Order: sequence, then C-alpha cells, then structure tokens
Amino acid sequence: MAESAASATLRVGLAQINPRVGDLAHNLAKVEDFLSRAEQAGCDVVVFPELTLSGYPPEDLVLKAGFVTDNRAALEKVAARSGRCAVVVGFVAVAEDEPIEQLSARPPRLFNAAALCANGAVVGVYHKQLLPNYSVFDEARYFAAGHDDATLYDVAGVAVALTICEDIWITDGPVSRARAAGAQLCLNINGSPFDRAKSGVRERTVIERARETSIPIVYVNQVCGQDELVFDGGSVVVDAGGGVVARAAHFVEELLVVDVPVASRTTKTQCVVATAPTTKPTPIAARVAVVADDYDRILAALALGTRDYVQKNGFTDVVLGLSGGIDSALVAAIAVEALGAAHVHGVSMPSRYSSEGSKTDAAALARNLGIDMLTIPIEPAFAAYLQMTNEAFSGRDADLTEENLQSRVRGTTVMALSNKFGWMVLTTGNKSELAVGYFTLYGDSVGGFAVIKDIFKTDVFALSHRVNERAKREIIPAATLTKPPSAELRPDQRDDQSLPAYDVLDAVLALYVEQDHTAAEIIALGHDEALVRRIVRLVDINEYKRRQLAPGVRVTSKAFGKDRRLPITNLYRG
Amino acid sequence: MAESAASATLRVGLAQINPRVGDLAHNLAKVEDFLSRAEQAGCDVVVFPELTLSGYPPEDLVLKAGFVTDNRAALEKVAARSGRCAVVVGFVAVAEDEPIEQLSARPPRLFNAAALCANGAVVGVYHKQLLPNYSVFDEARYFAAGHDDATLYDVAGVAVALTICEDIWITDGPVSRARAAGAQLCLNINGSPFDRAKSGVRERTVIERARETSIPIVYVNQVCGQDELVFDGGSVVVDAGGGVVARAAHFVEELLVVDVPVASRTTKTQCVVATAPTTKPTPIAARVAVVADDYDRILAALALGTRDYVQKNGFTDVVLGLSGGIDSALVAAIAVEALGAAHVHGVSMPSRYSSEGSKTDAAALARNLGIDMLTIPIEPAFAAYLQMTNEAFSGRDADLTEENLQSRVRGTTVMALSNKFGWMVLTTGNKSELAVGYFTLYGDSVGGFAVIKDIFKTDVFALSHRVNERAKREIIPAATLTKPPSAELRPDQRDDQSLPAYDVLDAVLALYVEQDHTAAEIIALGHDEALVRRIVRLVDINEYKRRQLAPGVRVTSKAFGKDRRLPITNLYRG
Repeated sequence: MAESAASATLRVGLAQINPRVGDLAHNLAKVEDFLSRAEQAGCDVVVFPELTLSGYPPEDLVLKAGFVTDNRAALEKVAARSGRCAVVVGFVAVAEDEPIEQLSARPPRLFNAAALCANGAVVGVYHKQLLPNYSVFDEARYFAAGHDDATLYDVAGVAVALTICEDIWITDGPVSRARAAGAQLCLNINGSPFDRAKSGVRERTVIERARETSIPIVYVNQVCGQDELVFDGGSVVVDAGGGVVARAAHFVEELLVVDVPVASRTTKTQCVVATAPTTKPTPIAARVAVVADDYDRILAALALGTRDYVQKNGFTDVVLGLSGGIDSALVAAIAVEALGAAHVHGVSMPSRYSSEGSKTDAAALARNLGIDMLTIPIEPAFAAYLQMTNEAFSGRDADLTEENLQSRVRGTTVMALSNKFGWMVLTTGNKSELAVGYFTLYGDSVGGFAVIKDIFKTDVFALSHRVNERAKREIIPAATLTKPPSAELRPDQRDDQSLPAYDVLDAVLALYVEQDHTAAEIIALGHDEALVRRIVRLVDINEYKRRQLAPGVRVTSKAFGKDRRLPITNLYRG
Repeated sequence: MAESAASATLRVGLAQINPRVGDLAHNLAKVEDFLSRAEQAGCDVVVFPELTLSGYPPEDLVLKAGFVTDNRAALEKVAARSGRCAVVVGFVAVAEDEPIEQLSARPPRLFNAAALCANGAVVGVYHKQLLPNYSVFDEARYFAAGHDDATLYDVAGVAVALTICEDIWITDGPVSRARAAGAQLCLNINGSPFDRAKSGVRERTVIERARETSIPIVYVNQVCGQDELVFDGGSVVVDAGGGVVARAAHFVEELLVVDVPVASRTTKTQCVVATAPTTKPTPIAARVAVVADDYDRILAALALGTRDYVQKNGFTDVVLGLSGGIDSALVAAIAVEALGAAHVHGVSMPSRYSSEGSKTDAAALARNLGIDMLTIPIEPAFAAYLQMTNEAFSGRDADLTEENLQSRVRGTTVMALSNKFGWMVLTTGNKSELAVGYFTLYGDSVGGFAVIKDIFKTDVFALSHRVNERAKREIIPAATLTKPPSAELRPDQRDDQSLPAYDVLDAVLALYVEQDHTAAEIIALGHDEALVRRIVRLVDINEYKRRQLAPGVRVTSKAFGKDRRLPITNLYRG
C-alpha cells in the first residue's frame, strides 16, 4: 500500500455548541444555524457534539420510547436540510430489528450514535463502542455497545472514520482499527465534562491517539452547563504527528473552521460515498486558543454552570444571603459574572450575634458588585420561635437547636423573597463544610443551586483573591478575605472552635472523599489518628444531609452528587 | 447417563438474615450465629444472601480498596469457623491477577461473588454472571461479569451449583449450563428488593427455572431495609418439578431448614469436594409460609423500611407533625408498628386557618395510637415573618409566599424538636403530591425519612382503611378518612381547588411516572389533553424539589429516587 505525506486538506467545521437536554426543537435549530455558517465558510463537513439532538446526558429521558422517536424525527430533518457540506450529528439510535415499544427491554437496545448526513439523506450511522459507566456516567444503563464494523465515509475525497468520546481513550481500539481499514481522518464527537484535573489529560489523549495511529483527529466537545456538569468545549484538531493544529476557546460557543491536512489515501480503502470533492477554497489560518490557568478555568466553569442552570430552568434573577463572609461573597461575584449585576439580589439578615463588621462587609460587597441589597433583621422570628418552644424545652439548656433556628429563619426569609419575586436562591456552602456537615439543613443550605459545592474552603480563598486580581480592584472586601470564618450563631463563635484548620481539614477530605482512602490508610500516611477518625465520622454521618442539597457545579474528579454514591445507611468505619 | 427419581435429600439451611451495609463485624457475627443454629439443626449446608458480608447494595463503598480487603478478611473468618456444615456466603471478590490498588481501574475488576466454605477453608468461589444495571441497580459500575465455568461442588454427596440473583432470571442461562454439567441442585443467593408487582413474579421465575432444568432450586433472599429499598425475604425451595417445597416468611429474619429432595447423580459429574456424606438425621417437615395480600405486604414493607432506616442510623425515636389529615395519620400508624408507641412523638401545629376538626382529629389519632402529642401554635413566628417582610413586600398581594411561610414555620418547629430531643423527623408526603410538587420545600417536606413517598394518594386511603381493619378498631379517625384533603394554608382551602381528583391524577401519574409514557401517548389513550399537559408539566418542573427530599420506602417498580433519573434541566415536553 502506497502512502504519502500530507497531500490534501479537508475543511472541517467544529461546531462547539450549547445544546439543551430534551429540547429537540432548540437543538435542531442550533444545528441548522451552525450548518449554514459552515456552508458559508466553505466547509466539507461540520461536526457536532455527542448526542447533539437529545442533549447530553439525557439520562432516563431515553427510556421514553416517544422521546427516542422524536429525536429520530429531528435527525431526519437534519438529513433533509443537508447538502454538499456533510453533517456529523449525535442522536439516540434504536437497534434496527427492535420495535420501539421494547425500549424497556434488557439488555438495552439503544445506541449512543453519530449520523453522517449529506445531500438530503442519512448516509450512515456509527454506534459508540466504549460506554463509560463510572463516575458521573451511567451509559450501560441505557445503551448497548456498538460492534466495530470499521465503516469509512468518503467526504469530499477523504476517507473519514467516526468515533464517539470514550472510543478514543484506549490504545489499539476503534481508532487503530479505523486506521487499519484505511481511514485518513478520525472525527470524534464528545460530551466530556470539565474537571480541573482533566482538561490537560483530555488533549494529551487526543495527541497520543493521533501519534499512535498517524492520522489526524478532530475532537469536538459541547459547551454548556447541565445540572451538576459543566462541559467546557476546548474542541481541538490534532494532526497526524500529534501537533495541535487548532483549538477552540473554552467555555464559549463557537464554530471553529480548520483546513485539516490529510495524508494520501491507500488504494484499497473501501468507503461509503457521502460527498464528492470540489475545488478547494482559499486556505484559512488555523486559530489556537490559549488555555487559561486552573483558577481562571474554575471561575469560568462556575459562571457557565450557574448561568445555564438558572436560565435553562426559566429564571432570570437570583437571590442570596450576604453574611459578610467569604463564601457568599465569592458566590455573589460569580453570579454577577454569570447573569449581570442587575439580576443578582443580596439580602443581609443580621441577628443579635452579628458583628458590626459583618454588616458593613456585606454592604461593601454589594456596593463593589453593583447589586441591590435588602436588609431584614431576623430577631422577630427568632424571638417568636424561642417563645413557641419555651414550654416544650423547659429545663433544657440552649444548644445547637437555637443556632439552627437562626439559620432556618434566614433560610425561610430568603425563600420568601424567592417565592414573592420569582428569584432562584443560590446557596453558598463550600465542599469542606458540606463534607463534615457544618451547615444547617433547611437553613443556610436552602436554594436551587449550590455554586461552590465542589470547592474546598482553601480554594474559596484562592478564588476570591483571583476575583479581585482579575478586576484589578477590590470586589470582595479585604476584611472578608482576612477575618477568621465564623457562622455567628452564638457570641464570639469561630469555625475553628468546631473544625480543624481548613488546610488540615481539606487535606484529609481530599484523601477520604476524592481518593477513596479509608481512615486507616490516611492515618498510615501520617495524619493524626483522632483527627482523621473524627473527620471521617463526620463525613459519613452527614451523608443524609448532603442528599438533600441542591445540585452544584462539579469541578473535581469526585464531587458530592452522582459522582459519589455512598449509602446513607452505612456502618463501615474503616 | 443414568438418572433416577429423587433418591436422596440434602438438608439445607436458608439463612434469611438482616445484614447491615458496611458493618462487617455485625454481618460476620450474624453468619456465625446462623451457622451454629444450622449445625444444631443437622444441616449439610447453610446459605446466606447476596453480598452477605458487605451488605447489599454496598454502592461506592466497594470503590475503597480498604473496604474490599476488610471484607475479604471477614470471609477468611467464616472459612476458619466452618466445619462439616458447608457455608455459602456472599462477598466482594477481586480478580486474582489484580493488585488491590488498581480497584479504580476501568473496566472494573471486582466480582459480586459467592464463596463455598467448609472444613476450615474456602473451597471455591463463584462470580455472578448477569449484572443488573437498570432501575435501582448499578452493578456494571462496580463489577465485571463472571465467566461460566460450570464448577460444581460435592456437598454431602450432592452435586451443587452456585448462582447469584439475576443469574436465574434467564432461560438457557447459568442454571441450564450447571444442569448440563450434572448439577443436582442449584443454590441461588439474592438481594432482591420488594416491589408490589414483583413478589409473585420472583417466585414464578424460580419455579420456571426449576421446571426448565428439572433440578431443585434453593432461593435465599435477605430481609431488611436499606435506604430506599426494602428486601422482603420470602426465601423459597422449589423442587425439580416446580413445586414449592418450603417458603420462609416475608419481612422477618429466620433460618428455614429444609430436606431438599435431589435426583441421583449422573456417573460423569465432576465436582470439587466440599464435605463428605453423613448419616441422615430424622427428616423434618417443611414449612410453607402463607403470602399476605398486596396491602398487608405494603404495610409490612413500610414498617420494616422505617424501622431499619431509623435504627440502623442510630435513632430510637421519631417525631412528626400531625395535621389531622390522612397522610400524617397513616405515617404515624406505620411508625408505631415499626418502633412502638413510646418511640413516636406527634406535634400539632395549628395556624389561624386550622379548622377545629383538624385539631381534634390529630388528638384522637394520638390517643388511638397511644403516642404523646405536643401542641405548638405557629401564629407567633408566622406573624413575625409577615412583619419582617412587610416592607420588602409592600404593594404586593398575598400569594403562595404566605402559604409557604406557614408550612416552613411548621418545618422549622418540628426540626427544633428533632434537634433538642434527638428524634428523627418523619415526613409525610405521598407520591401524588411529590409528583406534582404540591408541597413546600423546607416546609412539610422536612425530615430524615419519607415513609409514604412511593404511595399514591388513592392507596393512602386504602392502606389507612386496612390499618383500622387489622386493628379491628378505629386507629385512624373516621373524620380523617372521610373529609376532603386540605393543606389549610388559607381559608376554606381544599386540594381539589389546585389539583384534579386524586383518582384521575393518580391514573395519569402511573402512566407518566411509572410507565414512561409521553404526554402525547397518554392523551392518545383518551385522557383529557389540557389535564395531561398540566400534570406532565408539573411533574417535570418539580424535579428540583424532589431531589431535595429525604429517602423513603420504594414499593413500586418505579419510585422517585435512584429508580428514576430524569435530568432537572430538561426541556422535553413531549
């Protein structure tokens, strides 16, 4: 077989779009819009992300036969609209020999699929072969694994292979087999969620696969927030030598048009013909977007996740309690970034134990962000509860009950604002607090979205400093950044009276929560035994509280949520 | 091959136990106790449920390498304790060629396993072949499928095959292959959760498999509550002709000892020898427990699920709001059944809108059940909130905000009792309300356990009548059973002002929630279009509220919880 160096290019449009789960009409319109733009740019093919039409992940929506039928109808519309520029689009396919009524049959008979459409028809369909069923992924719940038929498509004279997400994550897998069949180019469509450790790994994987197979890979990811997941885009084209030819920006929609260099075709390559070659347009220069650093990426993920959750669920405005502390300050700053200052409302709810500093810090933050702030002192309701429970509690000392009462008065108050004005409540708990249960259920935990749920307290400080650095002025007040954290639910209370220092706590939590070490293993690593046992116990016994929390943006490789499925009733203390 | 009619018996102990997830020491002690009892009863083998040692389902606990190591150590102790009476026990096995540190490797290298122990050693290990990954099951997340090696074990002269749960649910599967290898008997260990539709199906499946293969099957299930699941026992022995030889009771622990008749061995059967034959003891008569009817089974499931959730999580007492309505009345009656009247505490929290009847009905219920009841009027806190929000809400009419405020005052009050006295709060919402969002988040929804979460309102009435019938006296007051349901959050409010009649609502909900029909399909079945669209929309937009609810007992084939994984951000309205 004769092969030569790069001898041609294929103009590929990487359609890094923001779909909406379940919104077939919206996703179809988005495909049509980006297809038109790709056609105008002279593309030979435009490539959309994984499960474009249904949105990703559709979860149990795909168990509804009617939904799968509707998604197939949307695909037919894409095909009908397609012309010379081929379209690769993700959808949910049904096994051909299967009546749609049998969807609930087990094992599953659905496929996570990519269709290649051109000249008014569906030219071919690829079924994802490797189904992730770990971490936040449940694809084996829904899909059967595709068989490797190594079908190639001739797109404007180039032999193209299709793959989906996980398919390119293993050596000697689908890409190698496609290459062996004669593929000149691999198109890979993705729904790959952001986590702070993964961004680099993902692009390195694409590079590895290109080097291993010596064919270029076009990697297209979506960009959106979907419940607890954020998809960060970063679509990329890697050439046959493993060089990054082009990269889309992270966290924004875009159509990235790239002239992808491809090697000559082997004489024996068998292809399904999709589109005929045309006269090549004037070459365009590829754009390689710069990758931001860790903290900037996290801030962008939190803003995108918050914006999409709020807006896709039909809200425009949010409200949150401003305590003068750093958690609510950071959440407010992210909310302003996500939604604009006019759509963010603060409420200060001082108690008999609130320091003067807390009130002035909250006011300064609101001023710095340009958001409005109500002030509603909680004393009347707190006093009322003390009176109401006076008889039932007679003879008993004040304890956590009275602290929780204050927090719950605040929760009830902010929910009343939410109900009256139609604002979604943002809740402000961080990962350290949520891990050890240092919050009041139905109190400070109330809300529709938990923005910094997956951010340890030590990172809350770092991100807050970054907010001010980026603004080149004081957004989060200096006093908020420097004072010792306190819940202010009793006189002179400080977090460090109840918890270890946050750097110590976070180190143990990372080992226990994110890395699945046992207490015994963490102690063996040199951490103080009593401390570790105490922290681990707190994490375990507070599982029931975390289950009742709002979703929040996942930014690590193991967030509380569908990532970490520990039983509530769990007696293991190893 | 020469085969004859039943020519021998094997004395099998079906150890229908209540393990605790994660509590290796407790589960080991339970195995040792039942083994001793089986030995005293002259058993040849005693059979424990699926994943006996870890508890089932252990969920992400098995991703901790330390936990898997500890569970293996517990197995070694079972083996060391075993003697002439063989023991079949479930545990989490690691692939033999795999270092334990690689647990997080994908695909998973763990097995859902059964060990046969005898005479101080692990004689053999069986790996589950069919891994359920639908409904509430996520076994593909954790386990690799076992390969069928059709190993048989000679136990007291009988060729025995091991299988685990799902393995016996298909025709021409593991049981058929074991039979072809010469098995005289199949031991099947289970963690099979109760649902009201499944009890009969499960036993019919065992019968089918026995008839198909013409060998007896011993089916052992656990009996416990574990978070939202209840395992109902009902262990059974089916003979080679498909006849039920013995059945353990449902919903209680027991050791059922059965002389299982087995056909003669084929001359060519290859076995791993476990224990030698002994002189047979005097035959014992098999016991076939009676199966209760649907409503009695559901009441038993709710009581067991509640008792185990409360007690395994370290609580002894519960508290709940008594409104005089039927939901709280039924929950109180179940709680008394589960925990005893001395451990159940009611609180009546009347408002300015409460009818006199509500107060007297609540008091009558408490009297009938013999539980204590506090009365805490909510007016002081409600009035305080109205005053606190007066300025912010000026110029706005009263609306749902003020209704929710009352509900949240009650939620806060019952949580204060919980905090002060260490009582777990039981929440009283039913499946119909939770489906359409007819409840107040952080209000009537507060609590640690949602007892009737999976019971439609129409069944709440039926179960309440059953409670009185079984007691042969009025437990739930007649007025509570007959008055129209009302939240009493404004003057003369009734549920049917906001919702369709419950029989109509429940019929549509069953189609939409439990059977995954789309709105269009339900309308095509003849239901009113406007009504269906309204109900479906309510179900969809209230997903975020349901996610913040406490777990509750699953009694149907699709409960809200890990059974139904719809996205919150979901724009499908088909």
